[in-house]
Amino acid sequence: MTYCVGMMLERGLVFMSDTRTNAGLDNISTFRKMSIWETPGDRSITLMSAGNLATTQAVVSLLDERSKSHDERAPSLLAVPSMFQAARIVADTLREVIASHANTGQRADSSFNATLILGGQIKGGPHRLFLIYPEGNFIEAAKDTPFFQIGETKYGRPILVRAYESDMSFEAAMKLLLVSFDSTTKANLTVGAPFDFHCYDKDSLKTGQTGRMASDDPYFQSVSQGWGDALREALDMLPDFSL
Amino acid sequence: MTYCVGMMLERGLVFMSDTRTNAGLDNISTFRKMSIWETPGDRSITLMSAGNLATTQAVVSLLDERSKSHDERAPSLLAVPSMFQAARIVADTLREVIASHANTGQRADSSFNATLILGGQIKGGPHRLFLIYPEGNFIEAAKDTPFFQIGETKYGRPILVRAYESDMSFEAAMKLLLVSFDSTTKANLTVGAPFDFHCYDKDSLKTGQTGRMASDDPYFQSVSQGWGDALREALDMLPDFSL
Repeated sequence: MTYCVGMMLERGLVFMSDTRTNAGLDNISTFRKMSIWETPGDRSITLMSAGNLATTQAVVSLLDERSKSHDERAPSLLAVPSMFQAARIVADTLREVIASHANTGQRADSSFNATLILGGQIKGGPHRLFLIYPEGNFIEAAKDTPFFQIGETKYGRPILVRAYESDMSFEAAMKLLLVSFDSTTKANLTVGAPFDFHCYDKDSLKTGQTGRMASDDPYFQSVSQGWGDALREALDMLPDFSL
Repeated sequence: MTYCVGMMLERGLVFMSDTRTNAGLDNISTFRKMSIWETPGDRSITLMSAGNLATTQAVVSLLDERSKSHDERAPSLLAVPSMFQAARIVADTLREVIASHANTGQRADSSFNATLILGGQIKGGPHRLFLIYPEGNFIEAAKDTPFFQIGETKYGRPILVRAYESDMSFEAAMKLLLVSFDSTTKANLTVGAPFDFHCYDKDSLKTGQTGRMASDDPYFQSVSQGWGDALREALDMLPDFSL
């Protein structure tokens, strides 16, 4: 499993992904699930992935190779004119990789599927956020659905639904995401720290603040421990049921 | 889907179940998923069910018939000497019903499976809580795992994990459960109000406070609305991340 969230704010985009991959509970590893492509002053594009690791790594490698090769540069993430075109390239690459494995007639215990979150901004357009399905189609975040989750989405969803505000600061959004990730890692062993993050400033057209939050990070610890107390206090504030 | 929680407290047991059943999003109904058998002064036993409605209703009907028929009264919920024996009877009945459908060679889109929560007290023994699997085996709640959830368990779990205390009052436990149910109904349309509840007082050996909480109940409304505000305040209390 995996847990990634991409969030659209008025001031930009926030991305966070866990790093645990597993092939059974007795075979876990740490892999980065966030990739960033940028041309400072022109674009910054962030991709997060959930699903079959071989598939998602192949997608990222293909996108990477194509953006570096000058011959093939035409349909590459670093050359497309809009985020919509970027989403189409990523979606096509994803479908192509899944098809190439599935069509060999190979069968695996887990499917070759993967789901992606893509977000960023290209000069001349707004910042946009997409959820890309294994079938190669995609949807875009809008006011009604301002964030996307992939992987183990359920445990961490209620707090996002309740506390998300489109005019949040990055600082508050990071806090909210860490609470959501903390709830998820507490309930599902296949989601685990450290968490990679990227806060993209609208119209900056370059990679913003990025980093990796370890489980023993003092700030994460204070959020994790403080949240339990804060929740209990919040519950105390509500009137008790009268039997 | 369904959402039911059975919770073991020092002062007794709290049960809550939703009432929505569905065969597709375009075919939803309201059914009671909580059954209570009692002999005042001797025992009170509560059963909640998640899964195939035909299966769970058959299980309840069989248990009911057997506890009323004097001939067959020997292995009935109203005659067994302990909660462990009660759990065995319920588990055997569940397995029997599932097998009787599955063995006819019929296939259905959904399986015939069901999962049950059974709790209560029989004179001479402590109050106990069990989770019964479709295979007919079961586990018992203990200090480390003081509550069981069945059905759509994920959305409502983080708050239970954080705020449960074994010495809670029934009033506080009901509030906690309503918050957990509210988070779940907000995220999954196949879980819905009204919610049935039963608070069993330890050593009372009779049915305690029971009732049905509608979605427009003023107390539920105040919890549902107040919880959003309380959560945001709780989040505000935590230190912001510094970028």
